[in-house]
Amino acid sequence: MAEPLLIGILGGMGPLATLDLWQKIIAGTPARRDQDHVPLVVWNVPQIPDRQAALAGRGESPLPALLRAIQQLNALGVSHIALPCNTAHHWYPQLAAASRAPLLHIADLTARHLAAVAPLPARVGLIATEGTLAAGWYQQRLSALGITPLLPERQEMDNQFVPGCYAVKRGELRLGGELLHQLAGALVARGAQRLILACTEVPPALQAVASPLQAIAIDPTHILAQACIDLWLDKRR
Amino acid sequence: MAEPLLIGILGGMGPLATLDLWQKIIAGTPARRDQDHVPLVVWNVPQIPDRQAALAGRGESPLPALLRAIQQLNALGVSHIALPCNTAHHWYPQLAAASRAPLLHIADLTARHLAAVAPLPARVGLIATEGTLAAGWYQQRLSALGITPLLPERQEMDNQFVPGCYAVKRGELRLGGELLHQLAGALVARGAQRLILACTEVPPALQAVASPLQAIAIDPTHILAQACIDLWLDKRR
Repeated sequence: MAEPLLIGILGGMGPLATLDLWQKIIAGTPARRDQDHVPLVVWNVPQIPDRQAALAGRGESPLPALLRAIQQLNALGVSHIALPCNTAHHWYPQLAAASRAPLLHIADLTARHLAAVAPLPARVGLIATEGTLAAGWYQQRLSALGITPLLPERQEMDNQFVPGCYAVKRGELRLGGELLHQLAGALVARGAQRLILACTEVPPALQAVASPLQAIAIDPTHILAQACIDLWLDKRR
Repeated sequence: MAEPLLIGILGGMGPLATLDLWQKIIAGTPARRDQDHVPLVVWNVPQIPDRQAALAGRGESPLPALLRAIQQLNALGVSHIALPCNTAHHWYPQLAAASRAPLLHIADLTARHLAAVAPLPARVGLIATEGTLAAGWYQQRLSALGITPLLPERQEMDNQFVPGCYAVKRGELRLGGELLHQLAGALVARGAQRLILACTEVPPALQAVASPLQAIAIDPTHILAQACIDLWLDKRR
């Protein structure tokens, strides 16, 4: 492949989660100098209609704004696109169809990573938005591996997940971290051996409160970062 | 002005310094939700020839790569461009001439910020690359305010600044921080009352070692971040 590698990041959902992906790409890249780092362009225009609200039927669709971002990244000649927002994968088919550059799929990458874990856990907790849970990407992939997915209960979504996630979007990382750590603990108490942090706001929040449950967490943002790094390292070889 | 605001960040020199600028923009933006955050695009293609080597006559010019980045950001319709690399301001005139979108000038912004400090310090230490020091931007602006600039000595550049700066580019933030903290301490010992961290690798390094000298530091990256935030807040008003 003669085309130069240039990763496009379709970000802004929210900005902190996008920053978290990029930070993980930088931290994970073996580099002796600037020029060894992954070439990338970050499209971070957060004025995209709220994904959770749209999927709940309470707001306009983010699809036109997402398609515009896909078009802009392709116009720059990106070779691949990463989407550091699980919920936005609801529109993955339309975005992939509109993009010359292939779109990485965060749940596919996570399932492939999980399949390589030995021994496989029997029960995995999922921390994700209503939209991601309703889409069922993670549950299907876990079930295919013979793993039982454990989901948050209604009141945990209302009292911990949603306020925790929106606190991160406001920059209140500690508050968000405390709420999301409580939710993670409840899933563990119900038998989860590992936790998938399937909303990109969750990893920086758990980090902000130094949650010990990070030790059993599977972080799709980290897996997405590693996929970007691997593409670059393959190219440099 | 009807044009939408979209900040272009011409980054990658190095990636960690660019990330630091963006992190400061996010942290400094009053936001209740994603949509309140500054819309921006980060062009982070670190395969730009080394600026310090080029200015020392030991490597190719980064100007063609920088001009290509300016062209790409303009093609995306950015309204302003920020350049989180002091040394790259050597090519500011050519870049500004090639750009429809105005380029913020990190030293101008820093001088304007400093002029508002009361009482003005008598002596300010400068931590910067050879190229930035030779260009004299900061010295001229400090002298115009009646402030005496204090520069690192030859051996401090060779033994602390240069290895400290390149350690950051390799991701060795603690090593970089220890070396740059030593240099900062030497400038204070020679009478500096404040320090200008006029190389964008320096602030994240001093932060990584929790240097107490951060308390007297003036951080041009932070000032550049605030200028981006102010443009966005003015637009939203």
